[in-house]
Amino acid sequence: MSEITKIILTEDDMPRQWYNIQADLKHPLPPPVDKEGKPIGPDALAPVFPMNLIEQEMSTQRWIDIPEEILEVLSLWRPSPLYRARRLEKALGTPAKIYYKNEGVSPPGSHKPNTAIAQAYYNREFGIKRLTTETGAGQWGSALAFACQLMGLECKVFMVRISFDQKPFRKIMMQTWGAECVASPSTETQAGRAILAQDPDTPGSLGIAISEAIEQAVQTDKTRYALGSVLNHVLMHQTIIGLEAKKQFAKIGAYPDIVIGCCGGGSNFAGLAFPFLADKFNGKDVRVIAIEPTACPTLTRAPFAYDSGDVAMMTPLLAMYSLGHTFVPPPIHAGGLRYHGMAPLVSHMLREGMIEAVAMPQLECYKAALLFARTEGFIPAPETAHAIAAVIREADKAKEEGKEKTIVMNWSGHGLMDLSGYRAYLEGKLSDFILPEEMLKRSIASMEGLPKPPEL
Amino acid sequence: MSEITKIILTEDDMPRQWYNIQADLKHPLPPPVDKEGKPIGPDALAPVFPMNLIEQEMSTQRWIDIPEEILEVLSLWRPSPLYRARRLEKALGTPAKIYYKNEGVSPPGSHKPNTAIAQAYYNREFGIKRLTTETGAGQWGSALAFACQLMGLECKVFMVRISFDQKPFRKIMMQTWGAECVASPSTETQAGRAILAQDPDTPGSLGIAISEAIEQAVQTDKTRYALGSVLNHVLMHQTIIGLEAKKQFAKIGAYPDIVIGCCGGGSNFAGLAFPFLADKFNGKDVRVIAIEPTACPTLTRAPFAYDSGDVAMMTPLLAMYSLGHTFVPPPIHAGGLRYHGMAPLVSHMLREGMIEAVAMPQLECYKAALLFARTEGFIPAPETAHAIAAVIREADKAKEEGKEKTIVMNWSGHGLMDLSGYRAYLEGKLSDFILPEEMLKRSIASMEGLPKPPEL
Repeated sequence: MSEITKIILTEDDMPRQWYNIQADLKHPLPPPVDKEGKPIGPDALAPVFPMNLIEQEMSTQRWIDIPEEILEVLSLWRPSPLYRARRLEKALGTPAKIYYKNEGVSPPGSHKPNTAIAQAYYNREFGIKRLTTETGAGQWGSALAFACQLMGLECKVFMVRISFDQKPFRKIMMQTWGAECVASPSTETQAGRAILAQDPDTPGSLGIAISEAIEQAVQTDKTRYALGSVLNHVLMHQTIIGLEAKKQFAKIGAYPDIVIGCCGGGSNFAGLAFPFLADKFNGKDVRVIAIEPTACPTLTRAPFAYDSGDVAMMTPLLAMYSLGHTFVPPPIHAGGLRYHGMAPLVSHMLREGMIEAVAMPQLECYKAALLFARTEGFIPAPETAHAIAAVIREADKAKEEGKEKTIVMNWSGHGLMDLSGYRAYLEGKLSDFILPEEMLKRSIASMEGLPKPPEL
Repeated sequence: MSEITKIILTEDDMPRQWYNIQADLKHPLPPPVDKEGKPIGPDALAPVFPMNLIEQEMSTQRWIDIPEEILEVLSLWRPSPLYRARRLEKALGTPAKIYYKNEGVSPPGSHKPNTAIAQAYYNREFGIKRLTTETGAGQWGSALAFACQLMGLECKVFMVRISFDQKPFRKIMMQTWGAECVASPSTETQAGRAILAQDPDTPGSLGIAISEAIEQAVQTDKTRYALGSVLNHVLMHQTIIGLEAKKQFAKIGAYPDIVIGCCGGGSNFAGLAFPFLADKFNGKDVRVIAIEPTACPTLTRAPFAYDSGDVAMMTPLLAMYSLGHTFVPPPIHAGGLRYHGMAPLVSHMLREGMIEAVAMPQLECYKAALLFARTEGFIPAPETAHAIAAVIREADKAKEEGKEKTIVMNWSGHGLMDLSGYRAYLEGKLSDFILPEEMLKRSIASMEGLPKPPEL
C-alpha cells in the first residue's frame, strides 16, 4: 500500500511512567477544602480512597512509575493505534492532516479502563477487597467492573434508575464481568432510603448514586470508592494516551499543531492533552482545545469557584469551573459530558492560558459523527463526536487559510452501546440545547456562601 | 513486561494474496447443479453475481492477488492481533498454550467485513451500483452496509422481521453507514407480497429474506446480490485471517497443534483453517476442528447431499452436508450458526478427512464465554463462544495428558450487540438443545428426489 493508515507501537514501546502535570504548574493548584475553606488533608480522604491513591492525588513528582501488573493488563489493548484519517480529510477537501488516537479498542470500548485498572490495582495493593462506584449511562461502571474482575476485586455499581431501566445492555456488561449492579436510589443505603421515602418513583440522579456509593464505601469493611474522572490521579492515569501519541508522532517525524479532546469531567481530554502541555510549558507552540456541549458549558460560561463534586455535597469542595452542584443538564445523548463541574487540573490549565475551550451544539456533533462513521468506518460515541466536530471546524479553517495543519484528537470511545442517539438524529428528532442565561444564573447561585478560591 | 500479550504485524506485513484451497483438493469439488443434476455454468449465475466474482468462485488458481484498494480499507483494522490467552490458561491450569485471533476489532465487530469489502470492490469494478442482501440478527447486514459505504455503493438489506422489530441496534448501525434496511417480508418484492398475503403477521425467515434480496438484485438495473458465507469466493476472502496467523506464529517461532473455529456457513472457520490445511496437504501434522451447535448439527449428524441454499430453493443445488432446506433450527442465541447447510468447501474437507467436527451444547458455550470474558476481558459473540468451549475441552485434555499443546482459535467477533444472551444465561433461563432424531429425519426428508452427489 502507498501510505499507512495507522501508526502502531509494540508492547515494548509502552510508556513506563505516567506524566504528572502538577510538577509543571506555573501557579499552585488550589487545594480541596471543606465548607469553611480549610484545606482537606490526606486523612480526611482515607475512608473514601486508599492512601496510595491519595498520595498520587497530592503528588508533585513529574514522573510516576506504572507498576508492571498494570502494564500487563493494559497490554490487552494498548498501545492503542494512532490513525491518520485520510478518508475524512478527503471528504472535507482539507489540506490539514487529521490523526485520531483510537481508545475504543479496549474491552469496554472507551478510555475509562486506563484508570479503572490502575485504581483497582492500587486498592488491592492497599488490602481493599471491594470497590463501589456510581454510573449514569454505564460507561464508567462497565470499565470498573472489567477492571475489578481482572484485578481480583469485588465491584458494586449504583446505576441511576432511569438508565438501569432504559439501558439494560451496559448493566449486562457489568454483570458479565461479575459486578453487582443495583438501581439507584436503592434500599441499601440511608441516602437511598431517604430519597425513596420522599419519592418512591424517582428516576434517580448521578448525585444520589454518588452519595450511595460513598456511603457504602465508608461504612463497609475493606471497601473504598472509585471515581472515573475529575480527580488528579485519574487524569494522570490517562496520560498514557498522550505519551503513546507523542511516541507515535515521533515515529513518523511529525508533531501536532492542534490537540483536541472532548471534556466532561476532563479525563480523556487531559489524557491526550497533558503530555503535549508538558512540551508547551517548555516553549513548544501547540494549541490545545477542550470541547464541551453547549448544553453543559462549564469551561466556556461558568465561573471559577469552590464547589462540591456532587449534588448532596458529600465530596470536599474543589476549585474548578462549575455550573453549580444543583445544575441539571438538558438530556443530550452525550451522557459523559453532562457534569456540572470540571477537573481542577483542566480548570487550572484554562486559567493559566495553556488551553482553549469551545462549546459545541448537539446537531453539529452528530453530523460530524455520521461523516466520520461513513468515511473512517468506526462509529464514535456521542461524547467523542464533540471532538470530531471541533476537528472538522479546524480542518475547514485550515482549508480556508490554505494551511497544512496537523490536528490530533482523542477518539475516546465507540458508539456501539449508544446507537439510540444515532436513531434519533437520523429520524430528525434531535435538537440543539443552548443553556438559557436564566437557568445558568439560578444554578450558579447554588454556590453562594461557599469559600472563594484565591486569585491567580 | 516479562512476556508479551499479543503478536502484532504492521500493515506492511499484510498478506498480498488470498489462498484458494481449490488448487489443493485431493478429489474434485462437486459443482453446483440445477434440479435435474446438470452443472450450473457461470452464465446462469450472472444475474445474481458479477462475473469477476463468479470467476473467483470457480477458480482453481492457488494464489489470487488482493487489490491495493481492498488492502487499504482492510488496514483500518488489519492485520488483526494474535493474542496469547495467558489469563485463560492460568484459570484452566493447563499446560496448553492458547492463542486467539481477534477479529472483533473491525468496525462492525466481526470477521464479516473481510469479504464484504472485497465483494463491494469487485461489484463496483464490474459497474454495479447497488448490492442487496439478507440478514438475520444483523451481523452480515451491518458488515455489508459498512463495506458499501466505504466502497461507494448503495446497499439494501432485507432483515428478518422478528429481528428488525426486536433487535433495533443492528438496524441503526446499518443506517448509520447509509444502508437502507427494510423488514422482510416486505411489500417491495413479489416473494414478499405473496407471503404477506398468506400471513400478514409472519415473523419472517432467513429463507424469505434471501428470496427477496435475490429477486430485487435480479430485477433491478446495475444491482447484484451478496452472500456472507458458504460460497467459495467468500471463504477465500477470509483466508487473510489464517495467512496473518501463520506469519504471527512464524514471528514467535511456533506452530499450532490444533486449529479451531466455529462453523455456521463456514466462512470464519475456513478463514483461519484453510491456510493451515495448505500445510497439512503437504504433510504437516495439524488437527483442524470445526465447531457447530448441537441444535444445528450439520457436520456431525446430517448427510452429504445436493441441497438448496435457501428455503424457497432459489439458489442452485450445492454439494454439502445439509439438514435439509426446510430445517428450522431451535432459537439458540448464536444466530450465525443457525444454518441448515455448510459451505461446500468445508463439507469437502470433512469428507476428505482433513478436518474434524464437534457439536457443542449451548450452556457449555456460555459458561466458556463467561470464563473468557472474566479472564481475557473481551466479551465474545455467542458464535465465537462455541470455539472457546472447544478450546477449553482441548486444553483440559492437554492437562490430563500433561502435554504442552499449542491451540489457536478464530475469535470471530465481540458480543457487545448480543448481550441479551448473556442476560438469559446469567438469569438461568437458557437450556441446551439437542436436535431430536425425529426432527432430523423429517427435515432431511425434504431433500428426497434431489440429485445425489458423486462418491469420493
